[in-house]
Amino acid sequence: MKNKIQPKTLPGFMELLPSEQILFNNIYDTIKRVYEKFGFLPLDTPVIEYSNILLAKAGGETEKQIYRFNKGDNDLSLRFDLTVPLSRYVSQHFQDITFPFKRYQMSKVFRGERPQKGRYREFYQCDIDIIGNQTLPLIYDAEMPAVIYEIFKTLSFGPFIIRINNRKILNGFFDSLNLTDIKTDILRIIDKIDKIGKEEVKKELKKIIDDDNCINSIINFITIDGSNYDIINSLRKLNIDNEEYNCGLNELEEVIKYIKLYQVEEEYYKIDLTIARGLDYYTGTVYETNLKEYPNLGSICSGGRYDNLTEYYTDEKLPGVGISIGLTRLFSQLLQENIISINKKSLIDILIIPMDDVDYSYVLNLAKKLRDNDIKTDICYGNKSLKHKMKYASKINVKYVAIIGTDEVNNETVMLKDMTNSTQQEYKLSDFVDKLLTLIS
Amino acid sequence: MKNKIQPKTLPGFMELLPSEQILFNNIYDTIKRVYEKFGFLPLDTPVIEYSNILLAKAGGETEKQIYRFNKGDNDLSLRFDLTVPLSRYVSQHFQDITFPFKRYQMSKVFRGERPQKGRYREFYQCDIDIIGNQTLPLIYDAEMPAVIYEIFKTLSFGPFIIRINNRKILNGFFDSLNLTDIKTDILRIIDKIDKIGKEEVKKELKKIIDDDNCINSIINFITIDGSNYDIINSLRKLNIDNEEYNCGLNELEEVIKYIKLYQVEEEYYKIDLTIARGLDYYTGTVYETNLKEYPNLGSICSGGRYDNLTEYYTDEKLPGVGISIGLTRLFSQLLQENIISINKKSLIDILIIPMDDVDYSYVLNLAKKLRDNDIKTDICYGNKSLKHKMKYASKINVKYVAIIGTDEVNNETVMLKDMTNSTQQEYKLSDFVDKLLTLIS
Repeated sequence: MKNKIQPKTLPGFMELLPSEQILFNNIYDTIKRVYEKFGFLPLDTPVIEYSNILLAKAGGETEKQIYRFNKGDNDLSLRFDLTVPLSRYVSQHFQDITFPFKRYQMSKVFRGERPQKGRYREFYQCDIDIIGNQTLPLIYDAEMPAVIYEIFKTLSFGPFIIRINNRKILNGFFDSLNLTDIKTDILRIIDKIDKIGKEEVKKELKKIIDDDNCINSIINFITIDGSNYDIINSLRKLNIDNEEYNCGLNELEEVIKYIKLYQVEEEYYKIDLTIARGLDYYTGTVYETNLKEYPNLGSICSGGRYDNLTEYYTDEKLPGVGISIGLTRLFSQLLQENIISINKKSLIDILIIPMDDVDYSYVLNLAKKLRDNDIKTDICYGNKSLKHKMKYASKINVKYVAIIGTDEVNNETVMLKDMTNSTQQEYKLSDFVDKLLTLIS
Repeated sequence: MKNKIQPKTLPGFMELLPSEQILFNNIYDTIKRVYEKFGFLPLDTPVIEYSNILLAKAGGETEKQIYRFNKGDNDLSLRFDLTVPLSRYVSQHFQDITFPFKRYQMSKVFRGERPQKGRYREFYQCDIDIIGNQTLPLIYDAEMPAVIYEIFKTLSFGPFIIRINNRKILNGFFDSLNLTDIKTDILRIIDKIDKIGKEEVKKELKKIIDDDNCINSIINFITIDGSNYDIINSLRKLNIDNEEYNCGLNELEEVIKYIKLYQVEEEYYKIDLTIARGLDYYTGTVYETNLKEYPNLGSICSGGRYDNLTEYYTDEKLPGVGISIGLTRLFSQLLQENIISINKKSLIDILIIPMDDVDYSYVLNLAKKLRDNDIKTDICYGNKSLKHKMKYASKINVKYVAIIGTDEVNNETVMLKDMTNSTQQEYKLSDFVDKLLTLIS
C-alpha cells in the first residue's frame, strides 16, 4: 500500500459541499440576472496578468497580499480585484468598445492575506461598472442603488439600507476648515464610525487635529440626520462657500431625485454623511449597503463614482461608477447568522428508481421524456434493494421519486412518490410529464 | 503627464469582447444546462492548491507546465485540470458525499506551456464525473455518450460522431500477442492514427516491435470496421483466449446496448478500436467525439472509465467514469473554422432612448415595468442628438429601440423601432410590455 497524502485545502479558501454550492449558485445567479436585466454585458478577464500592469497603482498592503511569481521570464500576479483588470481591459480594447460601457464580471480574486474569520484568500467579487468616454451623465449614479435594491429585494435577506454620500461634500467641507492636507486621514477615521463609534472617532481625530471646536464641527457635520431632504436642506443652510462642496451637494440632491424616479422605495436608501469609503479612488457619489437587522456584517455592497478609471494605461479620460458584492464573504456571513440555511433541496427534480428486474428501455424512455422537458432527472442504478434506494433518495434530498417495477412497465404507468409527505400516486405514462411539470412549477 | 503602462494580456490567455463573450457564455450555459438535466451537481474547487496534493501523480510534462510558487511557507500550484481536485475533494469529503456522486465543474485550469496556435495557458474545462463507492454499474458508461449527444445536438455544430472503445480489449489483445511490456507505448502510437495515418503508425510500431506479422495483426485489429454489431462479432470470432480481452468485449457490447436504450441516434456513436486515450488513467470504456465535417479539430469531448480515482489520498476504492470538454480551445476552433460566428446579437432586449427634454419619470417607469418582466433593458442617457443615440443603438446591435419624446409622454405611448428592418410602430404604454414579450419570445 502506498503512502497516502492527506487531502486538504488551504486555509482561507472556501470549498462547499453540493447542497451548499447549490445555495451559493442560486445567489450568484440572482445577482447575475439582475445585472443583465439592467443591461450590463459579461466580461471574463484572465486570472493571471503581468505584475507591472496589476500593480501600476497598488502599493503597501495590496502589494504584500498579492500572489506574485515568475514563470519563464515573466513576472506574473493573480488578480486581486476586478477593477484593475477592467481598467486594463478598457484601455486595451478602447477602439472596440461602445461607450458608455456597462459590464459585469463575477469572478474569483486572490489576496494572500493572513486568514481570519470571515476573510478569504480566494473569493468571488460581483462587480458592475459603467464607464463613459470623457463624460458620464450623473443619472448613472442613481442606477447603482436601483440595481442594489433589485438584488437584495429579490434575495430576501431582510430589510436593508443603501447609504449614500458624495465625496466632494466631505472634501469641500474639510477644505473650508483648512484641513486640506490631512483630508485623507480624516476620511479614513470617519469611515470607521460604524465600527468604533462617535467617541472613538473623536479620540482618533484628536491625534491629528489640535482644535476641539474643529473636531466638534466635523462630528456635528457627519452626524447631520433626518430625511434625505432634511439633510440636503441642513447642508444648504450651512452656507459653506466652497465650490467643491456645493458641486457635491448639487450632485447628491440630483442623484437622490433620480433614485426616486428609479422607483426605489424610500425606506431603502438614505443620505449618510459618515460614508467615506476608504479608497482614495472615489471622487463623487459613494455607496454602502447594510442589512438593518445585522449591522455587524458591515457593508454588503459598496461602490462609487470615480473621475478616471484608466490613468495608468491611457491618456483618455474615462470616468465611471460601479459597485461590488464580495459574495464569498457575504455567503459565509449569511450562513453564520442563520439569515440563510442550507435547505437541503436537491438540484434534481426527480429520481427514477428502477426495481431489480425491470426493463431499462422503459426507464430510459421515461428519463428521456423528462429531460426533453428540461426536468432535471437522475436514475438510481444498481442491484440494491428498494429500501436501500429509497434511503439514497432521502440522502440526496430529492422531492420526487418515480418507482418503476414490472407492474408499472406492464401497465404503462409511473408510481410517483412525494418524499416530503411520503404519499404516492400512480400516473399514466402518457400524461406523467405534464403532471410532473405542474407539480414542480 | 505620467508614463503610461501599455495595457496587454499574456500570450495564451483568451480575452473576449462582449459580443464574443455572449456567444461563449451561450455555449457554456448550454453545456451546464445539459449536465444539470442529467442530474449532475455543481462543484467549485479552489484555483490554488498545495503542490504536493496537485502533483501527487503528475510528472514529466505536467510538472514542467504547472504554475507553481511559494507564498509564505507554502508550496502552491494552480490547478492544471479538474480531475486531480475532484480526486482530492472526494477523498477529503468522503463522509459527507452520497455515492454514486455525480458532479460537474466548469472552471478555468492553468498550464504554462509554450503557447501555440489553438493552445491556451488558461482555459475552461467542462467536466462531469460519476464516482461510485467500491463499485459503479456499467450502465453509467452509457450515460456519458447520452450527455455528449444531447449537448452537441443542442449546440448544432453539425454532424458529429462519438467514438467508443474499451481499454481492456486493447490490453487483452496486446497481452495475447505477448506485448504486455510495451503495451503503453503501443497505445500511445495507435492513439495518433487519426493525425499521422496508418502507414506512419506502422513505421512507429516497427521501432519497438521487430515482427512484421505482429505489426500487421495490430493494424488489422484496430482497423476492424463495420456496424457496431459487426465489430463486436468480428472481435468475438477472433476467439482470443484472454480474460481481460473477453471482459472488455462483454463490457463494450453491453455499453453499446445501453446507449441505444438512452435513445442516442445510431449514426452518432460508433465503436472505434483505434481510440486508446493517451492517459494511462483509463481502465475500461473510452470516448472521443469528432465533428464529422471537421476531423482536423481532433476530439472535442473525451473521457472514459477509471478503476480508482483517489488512490493517492485514500484507501477507499472509488471507480468512476467521466468526460471533459476543453471549451476555450473548442470555442477558438469553432470561430476559426466559421462553424460559429459572432452574430453581434446584443444581450440586451431593448434600448430606451429618451429625447432631450423628456420627463425621466416616464422613461424610468417604463424601464421598471420591462425589467420587472425580465426584459433586459438599457437606457441611453445624455444630451446627444437622436441621430447620435440611434448610432449608439446600432453599434451595440440591439434589436428593439423604444423612443420616448414629449409626444409619447403626453399620449402615454411608446414608439418602438425594430432595428433589423428600420420599421417603427407606436404602442399604448399600458399594453407595451405584453406586446414586446410576444415580439422577443
